[in-house]
Amino acid sequence: MSKQVKQKKEDFDFIILGAGVTGLSAAMYAARLGLKTLCLGTSSSSELALGGVITTTDVVENYPGFIRLTGTELADKIREHALSYDLVTLKDEKVTEVKKSDVFAVTTEIKTYTSKTILFATGTKWRKLEVPGSVEFENRGVAYCALCDGALYKNKVVAVVGGSDSAAKDAMLLAEHAKHVYIIYRGDQIRPEPINMKRVLANKKIEIINKTNVKEVKGMKAVDHVVLDKPYKNSTKLDLQGVFVAIGHVVLSDLAKHLGVKLNDHNEIIIDHKTSETNVQGVYAAGDVADKPFKQAITGVAEGCTASYSAWQYLSKFKDN
Amino acid sequence: MSKQVKQKKEDFDFIILGAGVTGLSAAMYAARLGLKTLCLGTSSSSELALGGVITTTDVVENYPGFIRLTGTELADKIREHALSYDLVTLKDEKVTEVKKSDVFAVTTEIKTYTSKTILFATGTKWRKLEVPGSVEFENRGVAYCALCDGALYKNKVVAVVGGSDSAAKDAMLLAEHAKHVYIIYRGDQIRPEPINMKRVLANKKIEIINKTNVKEVKGMKAVDHVVLDKPYKNSTKLDLQGVFVAIGHVVLSDLAKHLGVKLNDHNEIIIDHKTSETNVQGVYAAGDVADKPFKQAITGVAEGCTASYSAWQYLSKFKDN
Repeated sequence: MSKQVKQKKEDFDFIILGAGVTGLSAAMYAARLGLKTLCLGTSSSSELALGGVITTTDVVENYPGFIRLTGTELADKIREHALSYDLVTLKDEKVTEVKKSDVFAVTTEIKTYTSKTILFATGTKWRKLEVPGSVEFENRGVAYCALCDGALYKNKVVAVVGGSDSAAKDAMLLAEHAKHVYIIYRGDQIRPEPINMKRVLANKKIEIINKTNVKEVKGMKAVDHVVLDKPYKNSTKLDLQGVFVAIGHVVLSDLAKHLGVKLNDHNEIIIDHKTSETNVQGVYAAGDVADKPFKQAITGVAEGCTASYSAWQYLSKFKDN
Repeated sequence: MSKQVKQKKEDFDFIILGAGVTGLSAAMYAARLGLKTLCLGTSSSSELALGGVITTTDVVENYPGFIRLTGTELADKIREHALSYDLVTLKDEKVTEVKKSDVFAVTTEIKTYTSKTILFATGTKWRKLEVPGSVEFENRGVAYCALCDGALYKNKVVAVVGGSDSAAKDAMLLAEHAKHVYIIYRGDQIRPEPINMKRVLANKKIEIINKTNVKEVKGMKAVDHVVLDKPYKNSTKLDLQGVFVAIGHVVLSDLAKHLGVKLNDHNEIIIDHKTSETNVQGVYAAGDVADKPFKQAITGVAEGCTASYSAWQYLSKFKDN
């Protein structure tokens, strides 16, 4: 028996891993359905962070019902909504292990909690651009979500850093707002899907700079240029107002994988999109950790509520016995 | 050529049928993606109504981000959000016909509009209880959505009218809040799925009254009793505070069906729940008209945004040519 299991356990109907907008919305919904719910996030790490990745977005304009608010404001509203139900317990603890026996045992550095149903709302973390200035200018020119923040760069000059299909799609999306879009890629040649390659090449606003790295992000109050590791058009200084980093993200699905939950090639949890169920009974997933190609706050929130409804239906079966 | 087609046409990138929260959210999202978008609802009919069925719900407590507001307030916020984008046109016109040739032609009593992509966000209408008092007391004791409004009847006595599986599930959901739940059914015996029948019979709070109709809903400011068409326990007067009508709803999918869009046995439009695509290219569906078993404002809104994203991706292909 592990050390954790010897500690006093606390039982819940539903345990949610992750306290971003997806997890918090699921908690609200579960409480409405009468489930004693534990929502676990942590403020001490970027994983399962309280409030979630939305808090890294300066302006949210695409969550229906709110014309414009900050990511932190949206997360706060949804947390307040969840905590308006007595059945919701929100804890700032890092989950270290999840085990399945007759119930699920979720262990943190503090305690072990048990439940018949669990939701992975663990999300992802962006793979960060690690150069001088990239952290300092985050939300002041350095951004990670073209779909979220692209509209803020109307008629500006921006760059996408990365060479994947996502990077190419980000560039096209940004070209609908910005006046000029660079793609800066360290490899020989960007490598989007052929159809997107064709589109990028046909797009007059997009200019590709291959075999080049961003060495530094610079500016005063906000980004005004980046420094390249080799000259482009005779200068290593590239003037621009926005740097969109698209060098991938890390899906936080390891704990689910250890439970036997099926992942796709991107390490995303495969769910039934009508129910948010995974292949393991009693285990649900929602939000950025799940396998929906279109990932937004609103879709994660809806998947979270759907998971709670499914968990409630599943738990109803036990009442028969 | 029909009379409508002779009228002057107006072209859009994306036409949304339905101006409930689903359609309006989709409009907002489409505009953000640069699509010239028309959203068609009507205030002159319960079909495709401006604001949608949510406006018939007095209190919404389950749309994440808003602890409590009225259905009309939520619809107003989302409409305001959509109309904050110049690319969104909202029209109060009843759609009479949708045809497909090289583009989709959507005809109202006023005009014909064309578009390469369309979204069915046409919703459903509740099959209404048609007895004296049922309209008068709507939202004052007469309700249609146990999941939405059940929590308002904590420790009250309520009745579900209907004998389907949905009626049984509504009764169980209500039993988590109410102190007593009648099921009033005109047929010989309620007919839920066997497992739900077993659950209903085992639930101490639920009492079934078969072979009985509600003749009238009565009260002062709010419902205080219903009149039955035959005595139950020696009285035709049944004291209660809530009447949940579960006699089915009508899915508004006829216009889609005529386009060759596949429906399921409930006349719901079958969609890919990752993308909101139907089987017909360029045609999307979202919200209550689609085939998700769990239907809530938040899920419809998310499906609507997903549809807009898919429509934008689809339209991007035409830019290559």
